[in-house]
Amino acid sequence: MPNPSLLRQSPELVSLGGAIRALRLAAGMSQEELAHLAEVDRSYLGRVERGDNNVAIMTLCRVAQALGVSGAQLLELAHL
Amino acid sequence: MPNPSLLRQSPELVSLGGAIRALRLAAGMSQEELAHLAEVDRSYLGRVERGDNNVAIMTLCRVAQALGVSGAQLLELAHL
Repeated sequence: MPNPSLLRQSPELVSLGGAIRALRLAAGMSQEELAHLAEVDRSYLGRVERGDNNVAIMTLCRVAQALGVSGAQLLELAHL
Repeated sequence: MPNPSLLRQSPELVSLGGAIRALRLAAGMSQEELAHLAEVDRSYLGRVERGDNNVAIMTLCRVAQALGVSGAQLLELAHL
């Protein structure tokens, strides 16, 4: 029986989460540090990185800014 | 007394809505046509264009695709 969350996941959200995670690790940040900078909950950020959350644009821009890129650059990295 | 919705509006969402509207008009599309292509409600699209809605990424990508651009290009146009 496949993982139920995998059934719901969209490739776009998984790609976005992967881009956020890659940028975070490249910046040497923990999820706690990025969550604090982006003013989001740490567990929420974890869901976003796993592709389990359909992020709203204002949060996306805060996460991008905390990672030192624009929202457009983040979407570019995620091929969206 | 300023328009209450203007008090709530964020510059980012107003900029994004403006970019969507500009692309839609440049493509000669009505809100009905774009809403149909992007599979969103026409009145919802109207709120997004006015900057009154914190659009989720999956919807943003559908609207961008319907306008013939990527999500990244749309955010670039909106300076986000």
